[in-house]
Amino acid sequence: MIKAGIIGSTGYAGGELVRILAGHKEVEICWFGSRSYIDKKYADVYQNMFQIVDAACMDDNMEELAGQADVIFTATPQGFCASLLKEDILSKVKVIDLSADYRIKDVGVYEKWYGIEHKSPQFIKEAVYGLCEINREDIRGARLIANPGCYTTCSILTAYPLAKEGLIDMDTLIIDAKSGTSGAGRGAKLPNLFCEVNENIKAYGVASHRHTPEIEEQLSYASGKTVTLNFTPHLVPMNRGILATEYANLTKDVSWEEVKAVYDAYYGGETFIRVLGRGVYPETKWVEGSNYVDIGFEIDRRTGRIIMMGAIDNLVKGAAGQAVQNMNLAFSLPETEGLNLVPMFP
Amino acid sequence: MIKAGIIGSTGYAGGELVRILAGHKEVEICWFGSRSYIDKKYADVYQNMFQIVDAACMDDNMEELAGQADVIFTATPQGFCASLLKEDILSKVKVIDLSADYRIKDVGVYEKWYGIEHKSPQFIKEAVYGLCEINREDIRGARLIANPGCYTTCSILTAYPLAKEGLIDMDTLIIDAKSGTSGAGRGAKLPNLFCEVNENIKAYGVASHRHTPEIEEQLSYASGKTVTLNFTPHLVPMNRGILATEYANLTKDVSWEEVKAVYDAYYGGETFIRVLGRGVYPETKWVEGSNYVDIGFEIDRRTGRIIMMGAIDNLVKGAAGQAVQNMNLAFSLPETEGLNLVPMFP
Amino acid sequence: MIKAGIIGSTGYAGGELVRILAGHKEVEICWFGSRSYIDKKYADVYQNMFQIVDAACMDDNMEELAGQADVIFTATPQGFCASLLKEDILSKVKVIDLSADYRIKDVGVYEKWYGIEHKSPQFIKEAVYGLCEINREDIRGARLIANPGCYTTCSILTAYPLAKEGLIDMDTLIIDAKSGTSGAGRGAKLPNLFCEVNENIKAYGVASHRHTPEIEEQLSYASGKTVTLNFTPHLVPMNRGILATEYANLTKDVSWEEVKAVYDAYYGGETFIRVLGRGVYPETKWVEGSNYVDIGFEIDRRTGRIIMMGAIDNLVKGAAGQAVQNMNLAFSLPETEGLNLVPMFP
Amino acid sequence: MIKAGIIGSTGYAGGELVRILAGHKEVEICWFGSRSYIDKKYADVYQNMFQIVDAACMDDNMEELAGQADVIFTATPQGFCASLLKEDILSKVKVIDLSADYRIKDVGVYEKWYGIEHKSPQFIKEAVYGLCEINREDIRGARLIANPGCYTTCSILTAYPLAKEGLIDMDTLIIDAKSGTSGAGRGAKLPNLFCEVNENIKAYGVASHRHTPEIEEQLSYASGKTVTLNFTPHLVPMNRGILATEYANLTKDVSWEEVKAVYDAYYGGETFIRVLGRGVYPETKWVEGSNYVDIGFEIDRRTGRIIMMGAIDNLVKGAAGQAVQNMNLAFSLPETEGLNLVPMFP
Repeated sequence: MIKAGIIGSTGYAGGELVRILAGHKEVEICWFGSRSYIDKKYADVYQNMFQIVDAACMDDNMEELAGQADVIFTATPQGFCASLLKEDILSKVKVIDLSADYRIKDVGVYEKWYGIEHKSPQFIKEAVYGLCEINREDIRGARLIANPGCYTTCSILTAYPLAKEGLIDMDTLIIDAKSGTSGAGRGAKLPNLFCEVNENIKAYGVASHRHTPEIEEQLSYASGKTVTLNFTPHLVPMNRGILATEYANLTKDVSWEEVKAVYDAYYGGETFIRVLGRGVYPETKWVEGSNYVDIGFEIDRRTGRIIMMGAIDNLVKGAAGQAVQNMNLAFSLPETEGLNLVPMFP
Repeated sequence: MIKAGIIGSTGYAGGELVRILAGHKEVEICWFGSRSYIDKKYADVYQNMFQIVDAACMDDNMEELAGQADVIFTATPQGFCASLLKEDILSKVKVIDLSADYRIKDVGVYEKWYGIEHKSPQFIKEAVYGLCEINREDIRGARLIANPGCYTTCSILTAYPLAKEGLIDMDTLIIDAKSGTSGAGRGAKLPNLFCEVNENIKAYGVASHRHTPEIEEQLSYASGKTVTLNFTPHLVPMNRGILATEYANLTKDVSWEEVKAVYDAYYGGETFIRVLGRGVYPETKWVEGSNYVDIGFEIDRRTGRIIMMGAIDNLVKGAAGQAVQNMNLAFSLPETEGLNLVPMFP
Repeated sequence: MIKAGIIGSTGYAGGELVRILAGHKEVEICWFGSRSYIDKKYADVYQNMFQIVDAACMDDNMEELAGQADVIFTATPQGFCASLLKEDILSKVKVIDLSADYRIKDVGVYEKWYGIEHKSPQFIKEAVYGLCEINREDIRGARLIANPGCYTTCSILTAYPLAKEGLIDMDTLIIDAKSGTSGAGRGAKLPNLFCEVNENIKAYGVASHRHTPEIEEQLSYASGKTVTLNFTPHLVPMNRGILATEYANLTKDVSWEEVKAVYDAYYGGETFIRVLGRGVYPETKWVEGSNYVDIGFEIDRRTGRIIMMGAIDNLVKGAAGQAVQNMNLAFSLPETEGLNLVPMFP
Repeated sequence: MIKAGIIGSTGYAGGELVRILAGHKEVEICWFGSRSYIDKKYADVYQNMFQIVDAACMDDNMEELAGQADVIFTATPQGFCASLLKEDILSKVKVIDLSADYRIKDVGVYEKWYGIEHKSPQFIKEAVYGLCEINREDIRGARLIANPGCYTTCSILTAYPLAKEGLIDMDTLIIDAKSGTSGAGRGAKLPNLFCEVNENIKAYGVASHRHTPEIEEQLSYASGKTVTLNFTPHLVPMNRGILATEYANLTKDVSWEEVKAVYDAYYGGETFIRVLGRGVYPETKWVEGSNYVDIGFEIDRRTGRIIMMGAIDNLVKGAAGQAVQNMNLAFSLPETEGLNLVPMFP
């Protein structure tokens, strides 16, 4: 039985980790870290866990936790994991960080977009970017895994095969993304109040959202050239779900079937990526509660562009689900263990 | 492996049966019945099932199905199951009917409230009312199970121990219930359109809702006297969930702890009923996607009344989940098999 | 032109006052009070007012404001108005208080339910309870008006004629109320976050909500006897609207038409109260954005009870709209001026 | 007093026309056309209009109506107005068509995108495209006005000044639009059910939505060159509102202030277009219920693109409000009469 500790277990992503690990046969949670609720019963914070989780919340002492756990998930604000991580910790446990601290290889880019100093840049090189379907082999055996962001997981996977195969002009790539409100976290902030979000849609972080360099870096690796793109997130009045609508010029005249074949070549064997049939576009509701990425596309002959669309549950494949998938890979467990979550509809 | 057939598999309750049975170790679905979608791929109707269910929809030939299945779930409109059921079918398979056809013992009451003739009243006596926590022993081995209604499951279980123990004056019981919109089914009707339901709340079926006699019958059994009560359902702008707020005069001066002890005596050993702590009231979100019933209460010394509150997911404990729980009991499987669904939050 | 000052203009009720007064021919707002946003442009707080309101927010200096305005609206937390009100202020301006400070005649009851000391009880007797349709004559010419609560406006008006005429047994009255989330105010609190409210319904303040004594007091006046009742509020995932479902035993055998005639006798001449036809029940959406109260009812011969239902927009008839209606009465303007707001659907 | 007839008065756009005209000083509605509800009280279809509208629904006899009205609004499916319009009608009344029948000058383009034959192409040339802020002078005195589509109004106005001034490369223009569900109409269709729309977002009509050629035509006029673009609509779980996020390459290096100056030059004098300040992006909630278009933008120096954003209420500026604005222009009334609708928040 693998012992897991979660630091930041009372945020929405942390809560989702608890929900998923509750159904994982090989793991038991030994530490429900939550600086805000120390000593409070976890089930008093998340009443859905009443009579399921009996433990009380712990502090965020990562060193002590490293002595008790086999794996630590940090579902914490940017900078937290980087400020506490040490070789001593990594020598004892695997760390799966759900923050951005180890996602970006160029520490200068990280510090510029996040506006904070990176406290342990020495681990960046070692850290594996945990986009499972792309970096599966590197993840196996890794000690430190940088779990990708929610927008980035969806944005990258939707375009990846076409970027890799050179089918799209990377200079023309535009990503217009829409997210449910759980992505904004559980902080008590005015813009996240029900009455402010409900019956409303808006863009935010236009030309400045922090997931931009992460998407650019990964798609640069895929395409073999430096990618600069527009990424615009929008806040949607729903709890969960991300839909990314991506536009790019095609580099050559291809049929729908040819593009489909490319997607299938990359994702045909993937359990968690479903490439949809002709004329079917992804909807966030169809993946809700599950680890799936649904991908569809349409070619516009009039403009020479392809419109790619991807949908995920931001808390599952966009956070906790992918973290568990990474854990499964890192510990050589079956990759889908604990993740056979059928999407809930309606 | 138990073979299950579902007639009405493309309604919301039928879809939920498919979702739950997909995670059930002892069952495989052999028949996805749907009169509206015959020969259409099930996953084309419910895209969440893409690459999970490969089958196409079948007709509703219950006789043929009886030759192939061990259990038939009928998630169909009132009158359907009663019109097709025959001794020959029951001799081959168990039938779990999610409609109201066999819930009410007095056929006259059924025909009056539902406004249709009952086509097979000869099976009413045999049918077991499948409220698992109350009728568990009768359900074991039953051939025909009348799966309770969503409102009724929540309403009855919330008041049952106090009714049984004579702690509340049954002549004063008033049930004010609130339901998500999936309870209205997947029919394309004007009142169920997004723009009609969203940002709105209303009562409906006031003093005339069909679940009233079902609640009255069961609470009459519990209290040992004929119960007549007010039941008022309301439509809430959410997909899932039922909250029942129930009011009754206390028959004697009791403390919160004494009432709690009564609830615990009945439900303390129940996996799926959670009696909440002092000052904690049930919220539908805390049980979403799960088979739980959450119950809380408050005593008002000023008026001498108790306010009991119960919450369920109408599609799970209020329909498909309880149907699977009934199946588990009827087939002597572990009662919780396939139902270890952790509520999803948010 | 009447000059109006609003203290607390950046809460939801304050914002609604600004919206309504923007369309009022006889009023101009001279003071947008908001302790939290002093010197900030009002339209930067409420972007809907961009290019409509040019003013910046002011402090809450009620004395200074009294020298500039003809009427002051206080849309402020409990205790605020009571702590600042002086004879000197009332001698210069009319005050319409949207808080509870002057609603309850018995200061002991106020202090018990609100848990604070009343700082100016000497004005309680003079204050007129501004339920316009009931106390119209007293409001004309009043200096200090206690604007009723949102739940109370809806709850009282729905039962008033029957209470007054002795048609219902006041000892059996139970009010089950449902409210949109704007009633919880614009404070950045965890329970009001989108993800906590959305897809959820719950009761709160069970047997302890502060609007209870206010409803009891007014219905005691109406019925001529001391009323003690159950009032249970629920939080609904929508922005606006209150629905009150009220249950009481009928004191005699009456027909639907007879009850309708009683309602019509009281409300037939009222612009803002609409008594609905047979079988039509109020829905909050049908009154959204307007000052209407919609009332419907059903008699249940089986239980001898009547179910009364009332719907309002909590921010309009439940707060700002009624405040303007009170102002119109107090200043001898046409009662409907500025309030001819057609409900918005959908 | 201008007499107005509405054909299609019980759709959502028709209902909004009734709401707006109820507050218009110079107009009375003489004909509530609704083929589906002939002889039924209008207020029984839209309960919000109870005691406001007393009339019953009429048929859609446009010829008879032309003898009674001064202006006819047709809020009807594509092809309807074109099939009934005659010179005889236009000689008696002005016609404001809210469908697409007269929006597109090239009848071949219309017939291709809409898949129906145009029954009265002889009026296309005369028809004025009623985008008020652009074609104001042509609208004055027009007999036949083609009221623009909801997506098109928002999409065109957001890009118009930059297209006209040559600041953006029209070959790179991509419009990603998001709409509330009222845009889908009041038809009882499965995809519009609450449970299908709620907690969900999806794209639809990708590379094939009918508003595409309308946007292209108008922006071609603006830019002086043939525009072909991508337009992707999305369905958002809210009742009202459209947000258009538009991407284009800048043709030269400009500052934020320079672009703002261009917008101001075109829209500075417009009552209904509000160009927002730096860093402020439009939100649909801030224009809800009003005739405003809110526009904001951001320049991305990294990619050389501008991101333009526009928000409207699809039923007001996107349909009924603009129709009334067109009527005001056509009848030489003050352009804002009946349209001083303050956005409702929350």
